[in-house]
Amino acid sequence: MQLTPDSINPKVLEAQYAVRGALVLRAMQHERALQQKQTLPFNEILYCNIGNPHQLKQKPITFFRQVLALTDYPDLLDMQGCSEVFPADAIARAKDFHKNTPGGTGAYSESQGLRHVRENVAKFIAKRDGVTAYADDIFLTDGASQGVHISIMCLVKNELDGIMIPIPQYPLYTATISLNGGRAVGYYLDESQGWTLDVSELDRALREARNQGTNVRALAVINPGNPTGQCLTEANIRQVVEFCERNNLVILADEVYQANVYGDVPFTSFRKVVTHMKSNVELISYHSVSKGMIGECGRRGGYMELINIDPVVVEQIYKLFSISLCSNIAGQIIVDLMVNPPAKGDPSHDQYEREMKDLFESLKRRSQKLHAALNSMKNITCTEIGGAMYAFPSIHLPPSAVQAAKEAGMTPDTFYAVELLDATGICVVPGSGFRQKQGSFHFRTTFLPSESKMDDVIDKLRKFNQSFMDKYS
Amino acid sequence: MQLTPDSINPKVLEAQYAVRGALVLRAMQHERALQQKQTLPFNEILYCNIGNPHQLKQKPITFFRQVLALTDYPDLLDMQGCSEVFPADAIARAKDFHKNTPGGTGAYSESQGLRHVRENVAKFIAKRDGVTAYADDIFLTDGASQGVHISIMCLVKNELDGIMIPIPQYPLYTATISLNGGRAVGYYLDESQGWTLDVSELDRALREARNQGTNVRALAVINPGNPTGQCLTEANIRQVVEFCERNNLVILADEVYQANVYGDVPFTSFRKVVTHMKSNVELISYHSVSKGMIGECGRRGGYMELINIDPVVVEQIYKLFSISLCSNIAGQIIVDLMVNPPAKGDPSHDQYEREMKDLFESLKRRSQKLHAALNSMKNITCTEIGGAMYAFPSIHLPPSAVQAAKEAGMTPDTFYAVELLDATGICVVPGSGFRQKQGSFHFRTTFLPSESKMDDVIDKLRKFNQSFMDKYS
Repeated sequence: MQLTPDSINPKVLEAQYAVRGALVLRAMQHERALQQKQTLPFNEILYCNIGNPHQLKQKPITFFRQVLALTDYPDLLDMQGCSEVFPADAIARAKDFHKNTPGGTGAYSESQGLRHVRENVAKFIAKRDGVTAYADDIFLTDGASQGVHISIMCLVKNELDGIMIPIPQYPLYTATISLNGGRAVGYYLDESQGWTLDVSELDRALREARNQGTNVRALAVINPGNPTGQCLTEANIRQVVEFCERNNLVILADEVYQANVYGDVPFTSFRKVVTHMKSNVELISYHSVSKGMIGECGRRGGYMELINIDPVVVEQIYKLFSISLCSNIAGQIIVDLMVNPPAKGDPSHDQYEREMKDLFESLKRRSQKLHAALNSMKNITCTEIGGAMYAFPSIHLPPSAVQAAKEAGMTPDTFYAVELLDATGICVVPGSGFRQKQGSFHFRTTFLPSESKMDDVIDKLRKFNQSFMDKYS
Repeated sequence: MQLTPDSINPKVLEAQYAVRGALVLRAMQHERALQQKQTLPFNEILYCNIGNPHQLKQKPITFFRQVLALTDYPDLLDMQGCSEVFPADAIARAKDFHKNTPGGTGAYSESQGLRHVRENVAKFIAKRDGVTAYADDIFLTDGASQGVHISIMCLVKNELDGIMIPIPQYPLYTATISLNGGRAVGYYLDESQGWTLDVSELDRALREARNQGTNVRALAVINPGNPTGQCLTEANIRQVVEFCERNNLVILADEVYQANVYGDVPFTSFRKVVTHMKSNVELISYHSVSKGMIGECGRRGGYMELINIDPVVVEQIYKLFSISLCSNIAGQIIVDLMVNPPAKGDPSHDQYEREMKDLFESLKRRSQKLHAALNSMKNITCTEIGGAMYAFPSIHLPPSAVQAAKEAGMTPDTFYAVELLDATGICVVPGSGFRQKQGSFHFRTTFLPSESKMDDVIDKLRKFNQSFMDKYS
């Protein structure tokens, strides 16, 4: 055989992505066993491993789906009674789309994405941040992941090039850095201070990496944090920008959870701070339709904005998009609707606002309930959940649990997560998949199950944890 | 600045993708000039550079779009009069989809793609080839390009690893090999024999590459050919399989044009031949919803099938898909509809068959008309177009045209294509973008403009070519 475990690209072997790793495959096996009527200690799998709201029955935003149906099947526009089934603004949006897009949803767009969508993205940024933004700086992507892939591909030339990433981090970053053969340079968030980002820690991490010969090129920030849920203050962002200016680093700002903010610190974009500081730091920021209240993960829609990037580099990025032709058009349409929802006075406005508000308040309630519940469990502590879709509690494992994990050939947090899955059907991701401070153990769970299911998750988790801790104490 | 032309990953700089290269950017500039009411020698751009049928007003298949509308906006299923607007089989398909897919089109599917879609793909392959096929061997992709990317990423470890590619080739191959830092090992198709693939030429190319220290790992075949349009005979495919067996090479079979066959040689899949030969050669084959009569390029839907691939390698490929989460769900639905269209007796069957047949016959007529026209033009010869969506004629340029190109700082074929664009608004791709035998010159043009527009393209091309050849003869 030509392509074997020994001869596959070792960078591929190196990459890890725990959010869909061994634990999820084990959960899928359990699910098949349940379908085959096998008896297990639970009767369903509760997927809390991934931010995938619709999988857990979250409803899509009605207006978005109305526009999609009319752009997918434009004959509906000519159907008798169309205006009874669809609101006038959804019809108008679909007509506008067809006017601006002669090939409809079935044609490749230009590599960078449909111009009229990029113009709306630019208006959204301008309004959000009080800045001027340009369609030419926007690239429409298949989810935020594609933008991150392409950015890191441009940055990593060889095994000496490094990208700074938070620890804990979303594993897309370490995976993509591995695939490109570079080095992940971790900087620690401070759990004892609610996962805050301290510039002295950035200095330490950079210094240490440079001492090891790493050519540090960029700093990735996830705000609001994934898996850690903290929201950076404007003052803190300013410090990060100054740090990157001083050290000539590109900022990669992952802001996909910008609409998921539940705490006291509001979301501030890196774009706003960079522009208001009149900084010339290079900034690439990412947004997505998969998160927020929209949760349209299956669409694979997103965008990235390039600020202060060398025009020749922008051309190269354009070429990379050309090689994969363009992001999918339905995803581009959802991006358009996300950045340009029904306005006040439009027929769909009130329903849209109500749906968004209900979802937001429900997410906030669930985050608070989960946070309180976790902190009331034995040997578990959890920082405030300021944003995003996850809790990332610390589990304080007794030495005999650590020993049992060792005997089972697993890291202690994986051992805890496997035991949890096998006992309850709840699928979470062990903290080691996100990286964590040596000797500390965590897991990541979403709070996306519906409110009644969430009670069930908490109840099951509490009982499991109690018996686990009792067993090993 | 950190990210500059000098410090960007040189593999990115190296990659070329002419299908959307400098010539297309020039065409887009002309288009903007026309929109701004500037006077040019033409009043529209005719995009013949890319296989993008809907851009040129090809209609989508009605049934596909009906199902999409019902899956994107399931409330339509409960609407009064739904069964008057939508045929019963479209409604049944949408209901089936929702039954099989609790999260609908808004949720990530499992990394490999929806299981019920993969099962239908397996049935399609089984029926097409008279073989047994398995859902577990299928990965649903964002277009065929993503499958090719992932395969080549697994194969290329370092700068000594090589992939054999046809010359001329579709530039995705050279671009992806460049991005992964490997070597493209070209084997020439024989234009004088209708772009046939001769195994002695494979032997020569392999020997030469190995003499240069290249670790040749795989052979890419495009059947029907892009840009060359030839269709491989079953006997020829058998020879290629034997060659790959002898030399321990993975076969990468790009079969996205399998439904676009206009000549006497029918399409035969590598899958069929490999299975019937009981070969254990490693085979990865690709298909897409972007081509055929469907032409749903903007959906980014496709699949790849892995045959005789080491199970550990399959796990690694699964992980790579996990890192980008999953292909978009609407694209997966179109794959499902492509492989499982309305059956005889279903309410939509006759309309579906008629739409497919009309499109097929029109494409065939246009291919024949273009082929005949090209051969009647001065200094142009074109082989028979057996399949795909392109003509790739040879242009026999007079020495003074070659000289003029040199003075303009362009390759001769680029010079011809630029002059054509500037004079007529017709955008084609120079042959050098696909690689071609030293000293020969070509361009690739689609025959996708509508039949009346196609007459216009031919007419303009003929006039331009005549005056160009006259000028330089």
